[in-house]
Amino acid sequence: MSFEFEVIATDGLARAGILHTPHGDIPTPVFAPVGTAGTVKALTPRDLESLDVKLILANTYHLFLRPGDELVRDMGGLHQFMNWQGPLLTDSGGFQVFSLAQINTIDDEGVTFRSHLDGSKQRLDPQRSMAIQQNLGADIIMAFDQCPRPDNRDEVNAAVERTRRWLAQCRAAHPHDDEQALFGIVQGGIFPDLRAKSARYATDMDLKGYAIGGLAVGESKAEMVAALDETLPRLPENRPRYLMGVGEPDDLVEGILRGVDIFDCVIPTRLARHGAAFTHHGRINLRNARFKRDESPIDAQLGNYASQFSRAYLRHLVMSKELLAHYLVSLHNVDFLVRHVANMRRAIIDGQLKAYAAQFLARYMGGESPVE
Amino acid sequence: MSFEFEVIATDGLARAGILHTPHGDIPTPVFAPVGTAGTVKALTPRDLESLDVKLILANTYHLFLRPGDELVRDMGGLHQFMNWQGPLLTDSGGFQVFSLAQINTIDDEGVTFRSHLDGSKQRLDPQRSMAIQQNLGADIIMAFDQCPRPDNRDEVNAAVERTRRWLAQCRAAHPHDDEQALFGIVQGGIFPDLRAKSARYATDMDLKGYAIGGLAVGESKAEMVAALDETLPRLPENRPRYLMGVGEPDDLVEGILRGVDIFDCVIPTRLARHGAAFTHHGRINLRNARFKRDESPIDAQLGNYASQFSRAYLRHLVMSKELLAHYLVSLHNVDFLVRHVANMRRAIIDGQLKAYAAQFLARYMGGESPVE
Repeated sequence: MSFEFEVIATDGLARAGILHTPHGDIPTPVFAPVGTAGTVKALTPRDLESLDVKLILANTYHLFLRPGDELVRDMGGLHQFMNWQGPLLTDSGGFQVFSLAQINTIDDEGVTFRSHLDGSKQRLDPQRSMAIQQNLGADIIMAFDQCPRPDNRDEVNAAVERTRRWLAQCRAAHPHDDEQALFGIVQGGIFPDLRAKSARYATDMDLKGYAIGGLAVGESKAEMVAALDETLPRLPENRPRYLMGVGEPDDLVEGILRGVDIFDCVIPTRLARHGAAFTHHGRINLRNARFKRDESPIDAQLGNYASQFSRAYLRHLVMSKELLAHYLVSLHNVDFLVRHVANMRRAIIDGQLKAYAAQFLARYMGGESPVE
Repeated sequence: MSFEFEVIATDGLARAGILHTPHGDIPTPVFAPVGTAGTVKALTPRDLESLDVKLILANTYHLFLRPGDELVRDMGGLHQFMNWQGPLLTDSGGFQVFSLAQINTIDDEGVTFRSHLDGSKQRLDPQRSMAIQQNLGADIIMAFDQCPRPDNRDEVNAAVERTRRWLAQCRAAHPHDDEQALFGIVQGGIFPDLRAKSARYATDMDLKGYAIGGLAVGESKAEMVAALDETLPRLPENRPRYLMGVGEPDDLVEGILRGVDIFDCVIPTRLARHGAAFTHHGRINLRNARFKRDESPIDAQLGNYASQFSRAYLRHLVMSKELLAHYLVSLHNVDFLVRHVANMRRAIIDGQLKAYAAQFLARYMGGESPVE
């Protein structure tokens, strides 16, 4: 029953479910931290287990370039290579080709680009993306798509058509979902009719799950929410829905309220490397001088290992560029998002999601209270 | 009975003992990793406990400049600030003033220098060093000494005389060892008569422990061993003997064979940041291409968490400059040295130190065997 998806409770449009995978069950909604190069930056698999992380995303583009997908395959696949026994998801490489590669040229068959590491000429196309993801061996693999700028209609429409053709080619190159489930991706930028068309294209094929791509790439929050409202009702209820690249605490609320099941984002670990931490009263930056002698933990509501350290000490580590700062703040930030999503799952089951969401947003968007 | 030192077994000149401190017993010989800025780089206190680390050294110079010893005091002292409940040792700041400060001028009363952080003019002297170390609150504090180049006789002699006067001033500024024990430091460079004189000066005062300073600063291994042979027999048997800044696995053997009880060194964490790891067959650098597809752990003899990862994966992390490389290799390297010293302690108790030392050195200095 791998990749079966059970919805166990609903609350409005929101759903709580379980996605079965060969490496374990994923309770949804779920937040997946990103392990770009086969490591969630600064954290160990042991740490991630301790935080109840249920899914990790790794980047096909990065692992293809270094250390190479064939090496990972020869070392027993990505699970064994990175020593993570839980579910894994790999993206298709498409997004990074456009955002990271030095030069890229797209044609109807794929993308030619130069590696951001050494400038070498490389090519990715649907077949290649499938072959790489098969070598990596993640439980969930993503169709190779084109993620365009969200607001140029002609470009977005061309991307929607390419993404359709490429999805069919991905399916042909990966015909069976026995060990790895292929998810399709809906593009369409900020254009309602193009979102609708792309959703139709994707759901024309019976896939194990559907993702919403091309968001959190520069559009406004209102535009993102409008695109979700347009797309989500067009996706089948009995399949998981994955909103790619989204992880701001308030965006997680908006997504879950509308029926998203899976999220991923680099934000918890990236912010940590800049000394920024989530709290229930908003984001703080530990560099701020007001934390110099602050003996309280980052957020008294969380009980992870980082909460044994004062903001004063963490600020000292950040100011001193100490590696331990990255570790402890990453641990905290991942915990914050994973618990936030797990709390919403419980609220769905209890039929209390709207109340939770309102309370969370009031505190989170209201900023830090002076007494805390 | 704080700071009482019991010798529980001897084997030749080597001793196994227990040093009692207000934050717990230290079984000796002991290797102390260095937490320069109040953190053993990349590792958590929890990790250090899991490796049976029994003593950590922190640097007075660094903590004085940032975040400031008064801030650390106000946050409850260094134990509470860094969340380490075990024994702590702080150095005097003297060594860093000479090795790190941008400009330094020594006079008979102290040292004026410019901070390596912001160029600000600062001064350290015996009274100030004691006051800072009292604010930090480590269990063992070190007398403010002058650590000269080891081979300029006039300079070394002047340093021996200054170190004597400064020790008396430190004792006056820290008259009681109830909560923090003051250790004196023997200088003398590579000159046997100056080592003897400096040892006499130090042992003229009844201190809780004695350190050998001014070694591992550029002299040859033969010169270091000769200085140890000259100094160690002149230190009282009922007091711990601390060889400062030494941590190469073979040097730990030489020191313990001659009766050293305490060591500290940045080497395990510093090497880790360069991708280098200790093994029982010598040091390896994980950047080496021969580890590309090496599925074995760094050293199959160690069972710490890093041993769950292959050299191939660790090499990938090192090449990708991933933070997890620092963490896992630091964990491994600290474990290697701590166990190496703990193994020697057991060998002393079993009367087998010479055999252990010979076997260890043959393997370690012989380099990596081709079959492993």
